[in-house]
Parts: sequence; structure tokens; C-alpha cells
Amino acid sequence: MKTLQQSFSVAFQYPVHFTQGIFQQENPLIRNIFSANLNGYAKRKVFVVIDDGVQKCFPTLHQEIKNYFSTFNGSIELCGEPLIIPGGEFSKNDNGLARQIIKAINDFGIDRHSYVIAIGGGAMLDLVGFAAAIAHRGIRHIRIPTTVLSQNDSGVGVKNGINAFGKKNFLGTFVPPYAVINDSQFLTSLHDRDWRSGIAEAIKVALIKDASFFKYIEEHTTQLLSRDMATMEQVIYHCAELHLNHIRSGDPFELGTSRPLDFGHWSAHKLEQLTLYSIRHGEAVALGIALDSTYSYLSGMLPERELEKILSLLKTLKFELYIPEMSFHLEDEQHPLNMMNGLNEFREHLGGVLTIMLLEQIGRGVEVHEMNLSKIREAVRLLEARSK
Amino acid sequence: MKTLQQSFSVAFQYPVHFTQGIFQQENPLIRNIFSANLNGYAKRKVFVVIDDGVQKCFPTLHQEIKNYFSTFNGSIELCGEPLIIPGGEFSKNDNGLARQIIKAINDFGIDRHSYVIAIGGGAMLDLVGFAAAIAHRGIRHIRIPTTVLSQNDSGVGVKNGINAFGKKNFLGTFVPPYAVINDSQFLTSLHDRDWRSGIAEAIKVALIKDASFFKYIEEHTTQLLSRDMATMEQVIYHCAELHLNHIRSGDPFELGTSRPLDFGHWSAHKLEQLTLYSIRHGEAVALGIALDSTYSYLSGMLPERELEKILSLLKTLKFELYIPEMSFHLEDEQHPLNMMNGLNEFREHLGGVLTIMLLEQIGRGVEVHEMNLSKIREAVRLLEARSK
Repeated sequence: MKTLQQSFSVAFQYPVHFTQGIFQQENPLIRNIFSANLNGYAKRKVFVVIDDGVQKCFPTLHQEIKNYFSTFNGSIELCGEPLIIPGGEFSKNDNGLARQIIKAINDFGIDRHSYVIAIGGGAMLDLVGFAAAIAHRGIRHIRIPTTVLSQNDSGVGVKNGINAFGKKNFLGTFVPPYAVINDSQFLTSLHDRDWRSGIAEAIKVALIKDASFFKYIEEHTTQLLSRDMATMEQVIYHCAELHLNHIRSGDPFELGTSRPLDFGHWSAHKLEQLTLYSIRHGEAVALGIALDSTYSYLSGMLPERELEKILSLLKTLKFELYIPEMSFHLEDEQHPLNMMNGLNEFREHLGGVLTIMLLEQIGRGVEVHEMNLSKIREAVRLLEARSK
Repeated sequence: MKTLQQSFSVAFQYPVHFTQGIFQQENPLIRNIFSANLNGYAKRKVFVVIDDGVQKCFPTLHQEIKNYFSTFNGSIELCGEPLIIPGGEFSKNDNGLARQIIKAINDFGIDRHSYVIAIGGGAMLDLVGFAAAIAHRGIRHIRIPTTVLSQNDSGVGVKNGINAFGKKNFLGTFVPPYAVINDSQFLTSLHDRDWRSGIAEAIKVALIKDASFFKYIEEHTTQLLSRDMATMEQVIYHCAELHLNHIRSGDPFELGTSRPLDFGHWSAHKLEQLTLYSIRHGEAVALGIALDSTYSYLSGMLPERELEKILSLLKTLKFELYIPEMSFHLEDEQHPLNMMNGLNEFREHLGGVLTIMLLEQIGRGVEVHEMNLSKIREAVRLLEARSK
């Protein structure tokens, strides 16, 4: 019996650009990305996929993209018409959409050194990212996230996926994008609810990593509520930076059992499902933050004064702290509609021992491997009482 | 306009074990693999998939596996019955098989820290590896390759995939296995053709990397032809070692345009397709080696004496140096059945500029970015003439 031990590291890098008006002729960013990588190539191919929600708000986008690429003098070939596909969480349930994108990659002869650009919200970026990741074992994928949530959180990370068997992200991979471009002009058309809900992920990362960022958000609630773009750009930039730092210094492909950026997410995912996705991901995350912060307080980890600050910030930003789905069959641990099932689903998706991030102070998270179900119930009742 | 630059490395490791009789009760290998990784777990789940070709040759395997796991006292749970699926290249065309494996992963609640074991030939391992790689963004996957070819080449590497749109490995990922177990007992049942054809990949890696290994194979043709297991184990071990070293020191996830281990493969892939997979992958690789070695000689890179040694070794090991499919429509560059189309398909799969490995001496490959079509024709005719 003999053994050879294989061991190697793979280096990954990608830029996250912050800009405005990415497809305006005078914006050189995309031109620069492509021309910097022509080595040996006569031309590069690009295939563009657009979220139909974005296309509706920016009806000329389609044409702007064609105009933008038409000035490249043949060094970049835009393949066919941009493909417009449905966005939102439901699009990730549709295996046919992934197949449609993969088929286009084949039809246009997009190779590993050509590009698929996706423009849209987080769910749609996950879907296109998955298709690009498995075609030819990985096409270059450029993400242009168009919501607060995707610009400051999922869109800058290394995951993609689609839903299967009724489970969120059951199929997916860890594959870094080739580049991310955050264009704040896309945020102008967001509904108020989407504008605000994306702030939940910024609060989340502030709570577990950066007390001064939490303070910044606290001090800028008026600007955020009045949709001041400079403030939102600042929040997105800093949140994306914390997210990128975390991936870099942590466990980017989640080979271990810990996933600290998922603070508040075990219940959030389940509540999205229990509400049939009628609440936004950010709204669900705000509920999850309220719940796990309250649980941290009830466990004697987080001082009451800090809990009050957290709940108060969420309320000021008009997040609900409680919805009835949190109490569904709360006493019946076996009931499939009991939110606490989310704990086991969360563990199963990540694998390994249950690992949940809680708070010991604003700006500092701490991981535990068990949650007390009675204390979760107590936290739910406390939030219910407050919300009356 | 601002930019954040993301940059990180991910470390991967996995063992390649060489053993005999992996599911005999007294073999502790699998028991050790699992018990070393129980940390915090009451038990681990294991789901086993078997190539039907292997099951036919080892009809008691199924039962041996159940017996083996039954002695684990509950620390390892074998999920359901081992799933038996068709092997061979055609199985990779069947998207339904990947879905069937993914569905079983879901049904059995296999999480990222549980295991899928695949026992079979290279094609079947590629298929199961792909399913395991995308379920939950990656289940732990243990490969037990059962052919010479998979034990010394594809089975020890980091790629998986299935075919789509008539293209080999159109869908796939780069994901290292959790462990590889090469059990030489599986080789005893191979047909002579499969036993021999696997040697082609060993000759390939010797030609581009290790002249002394080429010499070893030259000096042991009698033993190899008479199916001496100790010699074959030596060839497999050394070939796997060269393969692992190459991955480690090169570009494991093929982010660049070079793929030196694919010496002889541009025509091999195409010839497999043109013969409707009636020739073995190893036989196709032997043809590709003969062709690109002859081309290297005709280009003045490889001395004639060395070409003679290569062709003579291939002949001694009973490989064909020429098949009629190499000449189909050879003068008509536009014809879809012209083998030379393989050049462009090879480039498209890998992306970037065409990069082909040729030889300047036995044991030393050299990459070129262009092949002269007339010289390829000349090489084909030279091999045709020799084979008469």
C-alpha cells in the first residue's frame, strides 16, 4: 500500500469596479477590460444577458449596449442580440433558463477566453454565473449587479447557483467572476423597498465585523431614506470591501463548516420560503438579524443597550422586526412550517456541524454550534411583543 | 471611478492511494479515511455509485461493499443500495444520469461533509464527479478508478464533465476529489484491449516529461503484454505521480491557454468521434502520439531516430499507427469529417490561442501555436504507408 499526496494552491483575482453609466460611449471601463486582454487574439467574443426587470426600467439599455460595442472596430464581437431573461428568485427555480444560456454559449462559440456579461439582480446573476461556470468548465464571467443587495453582497462574491428540489442554491459552484462592475445609475430605478432592503446586508457585515461602519449607517439614516446617492455609494463601497476582505482572509470556497457572513441567514432563508418569496431577501435578513441579535441578548452574550441600538436602527430604516410566519407552529418542532426547520436545512446545505454566527457586541461576531430552541421561541415572542 | 482588487489563493489537497482489495474486511483504508474525519460528527453518510461494467465483472462487489460498511458500528451510514449506472463514453452523453445521481444526493440528504464514492472507468468517474461537484456547490467525492487509463491519468486529476451538444466535456468543472483509491484488483478483469490502451497515456506523459520512464516502458513490453501486474502497478504509479506533479506545478484549473498533458489529444478526441467511439480513448491517444511525433519529426524538431523509437514502442504494444478515419476528406479543409477540424475544436474548448504540445526529444515537449496543415497531411500519409 502506497500513497501519493497531492497538494497545490490556485490563485484567483478579480477587480470590483465602481462607476456610473457603464455603457455610455465616454466610459472607457469595459473597453479597457477587454483591450487589456487581447494578447494574441484578433478579437474577443462577448455574450450579454439582461434581467428583464432592468430592461423594463432602462428600455434603451439594449440599444446602448449595441452602440457601445459597435465602436470597438471589430476587436470585440457582440454575439447576437442581448438575451433578456426573467430575474428574481423564481428564475433560479427554472432549470430551462440555465440550459438556454448554455445553449447560447455553444451556438455563439464562446470559449473560455471569451466573455459572458450578466446585468441584473442577485438571483439572475447567480443563474447566469452558474451557466458560465460549467460551460467549457468555465467561461469568463463579468457581473454587472443592478441592485443594492447584489452590489454590496452576493454580486461581489465567488458563489453562483440555481434552486432544485425546492432548495435554494442546491446546484452551484464556487467560481470567482472575471470582473464585477457596480454602476450606481442602475440604483436610481429601484423601488423604495429594494433600495432599503439591500441595506440589511450592510448592517449585517457591520455587526459582525466593523462597529464604526455600524455607526456610519446609524448617522446616515436620513440620507439613506431620502435616497441620497453619494451616501448609498459609500455604504455599498464599504460593504463590498468588507465582503471582499472576508472572502480573501477566510475560507473562500467554504471547505470548512463556518460561514460567518451568513449571520441572520438561517431564519432568513426559511422565512423567504414560508412567505413564498413575497418578502425581499434583505427584508428577510433584517428579520434574521433582529432574531439572532435578540437571541444573543437572551443568551447573555450581547448587552441590552447594544440590542436596542440594533433594533432601533432596523426600525428607523423601516424594516419589520417580526412577521407572523416566525410564529407558525412554533411549539411544534416537527411541523414542516416551523421556522426552526431552517436551522437543520442551513446545516445540511453547509454540511458539517451546525455553525451559527451570533453577536457579543456590535462589530464582533462569535460562532456557536448549538441553538436553544426555547430561547429562539422567547426571542420570537419578544420581537412579536415589540412590533405591536 | 474606484476599484477594489480582490486576490486570494485556495489550497487543495488529496491523497492518491494504491492498494489491493479495497472492500475486503481486513483492508483498513476506507475505514481510516472516514474515521480520520469524524470531528464533531456522530456519523457520516456515504452514497456509492458503480459502473455496470465493473459490477458485471465483479458480481459480488455490491454485497462486499454492504458487508464492509456494516462493520462500521453506525459511524458510517451507507445510504441505500449502491446505484449501478452505465459506464463508457456514451454515459456522458446522458444528462439524465447526472440528474439521477443529483436526485439521490438530495433524497439521501448527503451534505458537503458527506461522501459520494464512484467506482468505475474514466467516463463514469467524470459523470459522477460532475454531479458531486455541483450538488450543494460540492459534495466530497472519492474516486475508485477501475481501468488502467483512469488509474494513471484522468482519475487522479481535478477535472470532471459530461458531454453536451455533441461536444466532449462541454459541461464540467475543476474540482479536486476528496481522495483517489487505485485498486489493482479491478485491473484483472479488463479486456486485453483495455489493459493495453491505458498504457498510451503513460507513453504520452513519458514522452513530454520523463525519458527514463519511456525507457522503463520500452524495457518492460514483454511483461506488460503478458499482463504482469507488478509491472503494470509500477507503470501506473509512476504515471500518476508525473500527472500529479504536473498539476501541482502547472496551471491546475487551466486559467491559461496551455494544456501540455494533452499531447496527441487534438486528433485523438476527433478520431474517437469519427469512429463513433468504436476505438478506446487510449487507442486514439496512441494514434495522436504517432501523428504528432511524426509531425514533430517532419518539422525538423524531433530526430528521426527518436521518432523510430516512439513508433516502434507503439507497434510493439500492438497499437495501430493509422486508421482510415485519419484520411477522410483530408484534402478538403472545409469538410466536417476532416480530422483536422479537431484542431479548432481543441482550441475552442480550451479557449485562447491555439496551443499544441510537440516533441523535440523523448522526454521533452515544446509548445507551438500553429500547425501546418500540409505537414499534418504528410504525417498522415507517412503513417498510412508504414501501416501497410
